[in-house]
Amino acid sequence: MSKLRFKISMSLDGFVAGPSQSVQNPLGIGGGRLHEWAFELAVFRSLLGMAGGAVNESTAVVEESLANIGATVMGRNMFGGHPGPWDAQNPWNGWWGADPPFHHPVFVLTHHARAPLQLEGGTSFTFVTDGIHAALEQARQAAGGKDVSLAGGANAAGQYLAAGLVDEMEINLAPTLLGSGERLFEGVGDTLHGLELVRTVATTKVTHLKYARR
Amino acid sequence: MSKLRFKISMSLDGFVAGPSQSVQNPLGIGGGRLHEWAFELAVFRSLLGMAGGAVNESTAVVEESLANIGATVMGRNMFGGHPGPWDAQNPWNGWWGADPPFHHPVFVLTHHARAPLQLEGGTSFTFVTDGIHAALEQARQAAGGKDVSLAGGANAAGQYLAAGLVDEMEINLAPTLLGSGERLFEGVGDTLHGLELVRTVATTKVTHLKYARR
Repeated sequence: MSKLRFKISMSLDGFVAGPSQSVQNPLGIGGGRLHEWAFELAVFRSLLGMAGGAVNESTAVVEESLANIGATVMGRNMFGGHPGPWDAQNPWNGWWGADPPFHHPVFVLTHHARAPLQLEGGTSFTFVTDGIHAALEQARQAAGGKDVSLAGGANAAGQYLAAGLVDEMEINLAPTLLGSGERLFEGVGDTLHGLELVRTVATTKVTHLKYARR
Repeated sequence: MSKLRFKISMSLDGFVAGPSQSVQNPLGIGGGRLHEWAFELAVFRSLLGMAGGAVNESTAVVEESLANIGATVMGRNMFGGHPGPWDAQNPWNGWWGADPPFHHPVFVLTHHARAPLQLEGGTSFTFVTDGIHAALEQARQAAGGKDVSLAGGANAAGQYLAAGLVDEMEINLAPTLLGSGERLFEGVGDTLHGLELVRTVATTKVTHLKYARR
């Protein structure tokens, strides 16, 4: 069965975004520090159409996270921060640009119904208004036997984690404090629903902690 | 100069003790899960006078944390949870027993003045009422050139971290969620004051993250 695979970068104090998030600053104050390890990688830069970059122990982790993914689920904030509703006068397409780096169908959890967006490079955004189970079901169908990526943010991920629907979780733990912002595990409870730590890849810039069912 | 070295076990969601801590249950609900990796180790069991136990990748980490320590600083909760004041009618000696596993002078941050306790095995408890700087200074003098261990709990550790007084920090990250309880980094702010991740030791039961100034 197609797995739901979640990956996210988190600070040592548990935040996945800094305070004062906005459309202009989607990562919040200091939130960029969570992703410094990724920004420098060639494999990550190429996703954004940029040349150059490093190859190191994190490369294989990123490559693994991208492999065999057929669809993505994300929360509304991850799509684009703008609260909606969207219409012809307000055609907000998120902050992913004309050619988003997904190249497969993306399902966005939202309270605002909207027609799907078909963008360049194979990425589509479908807006799901009837909850996490419906979004996951649609994503699994679209994935055609491949796995589904849970892209975040914290609120959407927390709902899937609390429901025990996540099959694999990769926490990219950044060696930094944000002090405030958006916590990943807020309200998730005290169980990982059988997810166990199965693999660690460590550098001085990030610790990749992979959780899965044995 | 003598270093202040902090070590603590923390859940993936940032708690160092579970909810509903009490004198009967000092680790709080679920808090024992933070220490399972240690409880099974021979090096840890021997500290508590118990035979047997495992030797694994965590052994060297624990041995390193114990080496070259001449004194310990801890918060009142870590000493014994009981709020005090203590007197002849209420001679609470903490939950460390007659022969605590420190074997050197321990300085307890408290608001209640009290005469020092001299226990078996070289452990003494001195109660310091004038704040974290005074306690650290007394501990450094008592350590006789060796380092000072900051034993926790969260509140005491947070004060030293926020003040930038910690020279080394070992986070033993347990692959579990507690959901609520006592957070390590609550109120510490958004800086580690130059502490960087310098070494990771990983098992499936714990991830040892060592932070220090380069």
